[in-house]
Amino acid sequence: MVVAVDANGADMGAGEVAAGARLAAQRGVRVLLFGPAEEFGDMGLCVEVIDAPVSVAKSPDPARAVRSTPEASIVQAARAVGEGRAQALVCAGGTGAALAAGLFNVKRARGIHRPALALPIPIPGFPPARPVTLLDVGANDQARGEHLVQFALMGAAFAEAVLGVEHPRVGLLSNGEERERGSEPVLAAGAALRERASDGGLRFVGNVEGGDIVGGAADVIVTDGFTGNIALKLMEGVSQTMLGAVRDAAGSSLRGKLGGMLLRPSLRGFRDEIDPEGQGGAYLLGLRRLAVIPHGRFGRRGFAQAIVRAERGAREDVVGATHAALSDAGALRRAPVSADPASLAGE
Amino acid sequence: MVVAVDANGADMGAGEVAAGARLAAQRGVRVLLFGPAEEFGDMGLCVEVIDAPVSVAKSPDPARAVRSTPEASIVQAARAVGEGRAQALVCAGGTGAALAAGLFNVKRARGIHRPALALPIPIPGFPPARPVTLLDVGANDQARGEHLVQFALMGAAFAEAVLGVEHPRVGLLSNGEERERGSEPVLAAGAALRERASDGGLRFVGNVEGGDIVGGAADVIVTDGFTGNIALKLMEGVSQTMLGAVRDAAGSSLRGKLGGMLLRPSLRGFRDEIDPEGQGGAYLLGLRRLAVIPHGRFGRRGFAQAIVRAERGAREDVVGATHAALSDAGALRRAPVSADPASLAGE
Repeated sequence: MVVAVDANGADMGAGEVAAGARLAAQRGVRVLLFGPAEEFGDMGLCVEVIDAPVSVAKSPDPARAVRSTPEASIVQAARAVGEGRAQALVCAGGTGAALAAGLFNVKRARGIHRPALALPIPIPGFPPARPVTLLDVGANDQARGEHLVQFALMGAAFAEAVLGVEHPRVGLLSNGEERERGSEPVLAAGAALRERASDGGLRFVGNVEGGDIVGGAADVIVTDGFTGNIALKLMEGVSQTMLGAVRDAAGSSLRGKLGGMLLRPSLRGFRDEIDPEGQGGAYLLGLRRLAVIPHGRFGRRGFAQAIVRAERGAREDVVGATHAALSDAGALRRAPVSADPASLAGE
Repeated sequence: MVVAVDANGADMGAGEVAAGARLAAQRGVRVLLFGPAEEFGDMGLCVEVIDAPVSVAKSPDPARAVRSTPEASIVQAARAVGEGRAQALVCAGGTGAALAAGLFNVKRARGIHRPALALPIPIPGFPPARPVTLLDVGANDQARGEHLVQFALMGAAFAEAVLGVEHPRVGLLSNGEERERGSEPVLAAGAALRERASDGGLRFVGNVEGGDIVGGAADVIVTDGFTGNIALKLMEGVSQTMLGAVRDAAGSSLRGKLGGMLLRPSLRGFRDEIDPEGQGGAYLLGLRRLAVIPHGRFGRRGFAQAIVRAERGAREDVVGATHAALSDAGALRRAPVSADPASLAGE
């Protein structure tokens, strides 16, 4: 198994991604590393460097940039996966460019309506090895019922193969737990998923509410990319605001300062627990190969984790498992796939 | 100005609501109090008690219960408002029953497509007097573009009249700040609101993202009841999880315990700042009179605040201001209103 890695676009520079690739190589992963070779240094035997200094990570129109810049590092990396020289893709910067390059060069898996972006979210108090996977967090601006059904099966196969969650519980995000609550696509998906669940193929726990994302009610939570993106950014905002308020309170008096100092070591464990780098980033599901999109602000440890997880996804054949689950559930797309992958990016 | 209050349905019992009514009366508000009179005790001169022990607050089918139980306290309170004996409504328990009784007995304001539930959310770090108002947080399961446009104008009029925010900034919740991001209703509403804003009638700041709800980018944030309800419950869940994790960390060692003890007084100010009781609850906008729905778990201080704010809404004529804003913006509904208000509850 080989993982193709695009090193361009990371906040700390391509050298940090290269350092992550070295860490992953030490954990036994073979890497094809695309990016500005002069920033990489000595990479050892398990990392093959392809000099590709051109980056489209910050392009305002990623789909167009990907189409018109075949020499860009993300395009070369995605092409390596599309042509079978690598079995998984990691893109260090620019979600839009990664989505576009994935669609153009890796291509959608057979029978998939739309790829979705899945994010394993570490929840404090939960065992860190068992995060909650939320999808779609933003690959599509909206979704029909049949899309949500595929997201549910894709998410379950991913949690099982890549995160090691046995028989993951799948919930459908809605504005009430009752089956009659929700938008039209949610009502349609809920009815279809209840049917699949009664066949024993899927562990569907029904509608879940906003608070259940952090409440442990499900291992996989399904929503459209509009709601998922809002939920994700709201969670980040609330966490930061709360931590900032605690920090301010601790800084507001001598007594508070002393209290904060004494509390700090205990809070470190909590911060490690909810550290997003431990999850490797977001996962683009529904292509012919797994693609991982770590956050641009990650450090080497986060990039290494993304590469290790990408390799695990290839080894555990998450794409094959997804296809089998969709096929068993009768949820594969039957109509022929549109010739223009740009029309499927939902943008 | 008189406020009709339904005392049934509160977690701490009708006596706690009565205590809140007494507090509001001390602040100069005249109250009609509906509920089990034997639980109220002596209410003084400014509170008129109407014995109405029957409650439908916990009914599984609130619309039906409201229709078939004219003697229920919420129905009597809403009727007092509908008939002009009171100028605002406060309902202490059962959002579903309050929505149904409001629609049946207070009725929608002329030209309103759908009432919406608006929640002023206290944000730590912000001045407590200036919360962010999120609407709709759950009166409707979905919304069309023209509904979102009305929510924007209703929310702005509410923030100005009831919360005292001058020229409130209004944002449209979406999955990206760019105007081309969003679901179909959001794209339609965004285009219409930009047009209103260019007339100078509305201070529209464009699309805002999930993190902006707590980030101070807008004073009023507009979304459909599906997304708003998910966002609200997610915020509650994340806050509780984070505070619980800090508490656990503080309890995990002697050093942590000491630190937590020292920090506690500083954190009290923060807790007061984000105390939901200070905001009085959720506000049902779009009826002929303002209705306030405090949270069932509130104490007397929260109920008093709901009653005081309801009176302020009547005194400042939030309904008239809303109608004028909608009329100026050409956003009033033109088609005749359906005869059956149940079809408008979105449930």
